Amino acid sequence: MAVKLTEPTQAYSVDGVRLATASAGIRYVGRDDVVLIEIAQQSNVAAMFTQNKFCAAPVALAKKHLKDNAPRYLIINAGNANAGTGQLGMDAAIATTKAVAEHFNVMPQQVLPFSTGVIGEVLDVSKIENQLLSMSNGLSEDHWLLAAKAIMTTDTVSKAYSKKINIAGKDVCVTGIAKGSGMIQPNMATMLSYVATNLEIPSCILQELLCQAADQSFNSITVDSDTSTNDACVLVATGRSKVSYESITLDEKDQFKQALCWLMQMLAQAIVRDGEGATKFVTVCIELAGYIKQAKTVAYSVANSPLVKTALSASDPNWGRIMAAAGKCADEDLQLSEASLYINGIVVMERGELAMSYTEQAGKQAMQAEEIEIKIQLNLGLAQHTVWTTDLTHEYVSINADYRS
Amino acid sequence: MAVKLTEPTQAYSVDGVRLATASAGIRYVGRDDVVLIEIAQQSNVAAMFTQNKFCAAPVALAKKHLKDNAPRYLIINAGNANAGTGQLGMDAAIATTKAVAEHFNVMPQQVLPFSTGVIGEVLDVSKIENQLLSMSNGLSEDHWLLAAKAIMTTDTVSKAYSKKINIAGKDVCVTGIAKGSGMIQPNMATMLSYVATNLEIPSCILQELLCQAADQSFNSITVDSDTSTNDACVLVATGRSKVSYESITLDEKDQFKQALCWLMQMLAQAIVRDGEGATKFVTVCIELAGYIKQAKTVAYSVANSPLVKTALSASDPNWGRIMAAAGKCADEDLQLSEASLYINGIVVMERGELAMSYTEQAGKQAMQAEEIEIKIQLNLGLAQHTVWTTDLTHEYVSINADYRS
Repeated sequence: MAVKLTEPTQAYSVDGVRLATASAGIRYVGRDDVVLIEIAQQSNVAAMFTQNKFCAAPVALAKKHLKDNAPRYLIINAGNANAGTGQLGMDAAIATTKAVAEHFNVMPQQVLPFSTGVIGEVLDVSKIENQLLSMSNGLSEDHWLLAAKAIMTTDTVSKAYSKKINIAGKDVCVTGIAKGSGMIQPNMATMLSYVATNLEIPSCILQELLCQAADQSFNSITVDSDTSTNDACVLVATGRSKVSYESITLDEKDQFKQALCWLMQMLAQAIVRDGEGATKFVTVCIELAGYIKQAKTVAYSVANSPLVKTALSASDPNWGRIMAAAGKCADEDLQLSEASLYINGIVVMERGELAMSYTEQAGKQAMQAEEIEIKIQLNLGLAQHTVWTTDLTHEYVSINADYRS
Repeated sequence: MAVKLTEPTQAYSVDGVRLATASAGIRYVGRDDVVLIEIAQQSNVAAMFTQNKFCAAPVALAKKHLKDNAPRYLIINAGNANAGTGQLGMDAAIATTKAVAEHFNVMPQQVLPFSTGVIGEVLDVSKIENQLLSMSNGLSEDHWLLAAKAIMTTDTVSKAYSKKINIAGKDVCVTGIAKGSGMIQPNMATMLSYVATNLEIPSCILQELLCQAADQSFNSITVDSDTSTNDACVLVATGRSKVSYESITLDEKDQFKQALCWLMQMLAQAIVRDGEGATKFVTVCIELAGYIKQAKTVAYSVANSPLVKTALSASDPNWGRIMAAAGKCADEDLQLSEASLYINGIVVMERGELAMSYTEQAGKQAMQAEEIEIKIQLNLGLAQHTVWTTDLTHEYVSINADYRS
């Protein structure tokens, strides 16, 4: 079902990051479902987590461990989210990090746990423990693509991107993987992403770079408006390229930031393309807004509207629904009397009136495409924001209504 | 498809309000689609309109007319929302009110226009004009049920409720009709409601009473989170009972307020029961919240979650999705570590942990019912709010994907 998304075939290794996968049988049979990521000493690590107040035990523990410690190991399992599991869930998360820490002779606080899968079932830690030795032996810098596969839940395509740029005469690379097929999946929570670079970046800057890139990528996508209990995104900077972010030129900094943003956008868009039941990949672009918050609010209002999304699934150029979805925002300064609307480049509304040149025929033809750009120019200022989403299909209802039965 | 909703068979007449319907052929064939409501002199009228910034021409004009004038006539058409129609749409709305005003020898500002139906098509005013004479002759206090039918669009059942109470030894009645089958319907916008009482109520109090009752009724329902371009709710007080709201006791005031609130809740719930594709009628009740806004935010977050709604359609007691939907609210004070969850009276979570007594079997059985109550006790304070909604079904996608094709 994924919209114009194919399996990745290449990912550059990142000096200082080794990965291993194993089949622990947590939920799936005959596939890898556990990933261990080893981060070299002297690396810096930044992370962002779900804002959901019903967040999972591993999220709470990873946040705590990150506070004062340099993480050395990430342990990730698919098939069980360890969410909604109360104290037993927290005990399981703690036990997992302890097991990894003992095996590698580090502190438990240097291990970050991540889980994705069914909510409400307690994680069987022994299944992970049993795989530690084989994973320890299997650690390699070349296992990014295997890891991308092992963290999948309802994903239909694995997600990995990689970019190499030349900075200060040296190869700097950024490689990342992600999983997700909905902001939250049925019971199968959720979105995880791991990105690494060999650039040397101090912690505080690293967190800032992650936040900036996430704002333009993972925080600009929606499949069904449901934020998950387990979302996490980790950015590792190993410094092994011997190039320091602080010592490079402004242009080179921009070059790196663009590469990181591109990578995270590709991962984020891949999640949308693989969205549950998706048949369209939709870009909602709000331009000339009064301020960025307004652009974001309108963009999400359109992108999350069930009526817009069902129209998209039917390739119906239903501009009335789009403008009504824009108009329902609780933004006091929003007015649509000057707004213009474009669907895949075709002008539909011009400054509040139906465009003279617009025909239903042209609209219908534009909507046939698998990739749709809905652009609204508010003509209220100069701010803009773009959000990526999918259509709402029968398949989405089937996947989510039938998941546990 | 409507969930436990049958055609109304009785509505008390309200002295001072006469209604007439006609078949103008605006969109439908072989059924009435225009309603004229005459309000006696000395009546007071309050109204609430959609907050959508892409609101329809009749909404803008009705708001303007209401400002300084006592409305004498309401003219309502189904089949065409006269929304997204620009200046031509405003011209049509003005022409409609002028035609009614000339026919009855009142000022155009004393006529309020309402439209519901397809967005983006200009209204043919002559079709309404052609029916004015016959409607003028057909005005009667007994036509509430006919009017309820004539304002329907994608509704499958007409909606009318009525209540008589004794105040100060006299019969006071409240009668109301509504239409709607989604907060916004596909292209078919939307929710309209007209309520009248023979009590005498000053304008300023009338608006206050309407807002209070709407808060507990029309502003507490959601089918698909999409607010329409044409929503309107009108409350008329004719005063013909010769009982004045200002002169009655506090107990009697409460009695009236309860009757009004009951009536508007029944109408609002009827819209949800008739929601597009609905197979469940769902009450989301948030109790023991820190404050009312928190209760409302959590209630709507649960009620609008596509994942909760698809689970409901499958009768799946998917408490993980319910708690995740509650948890995704952007309320800084919200915490769920002390929250309890009940589904149709069965305790699922108790103070943040899965209840010892809960079994999947019991949950599944509770979810089989056509009427589901999801109750979350936040244990953060004493505020509460209730929202009514439906499930999200294949039928919803079909109705909204196939509507214009």
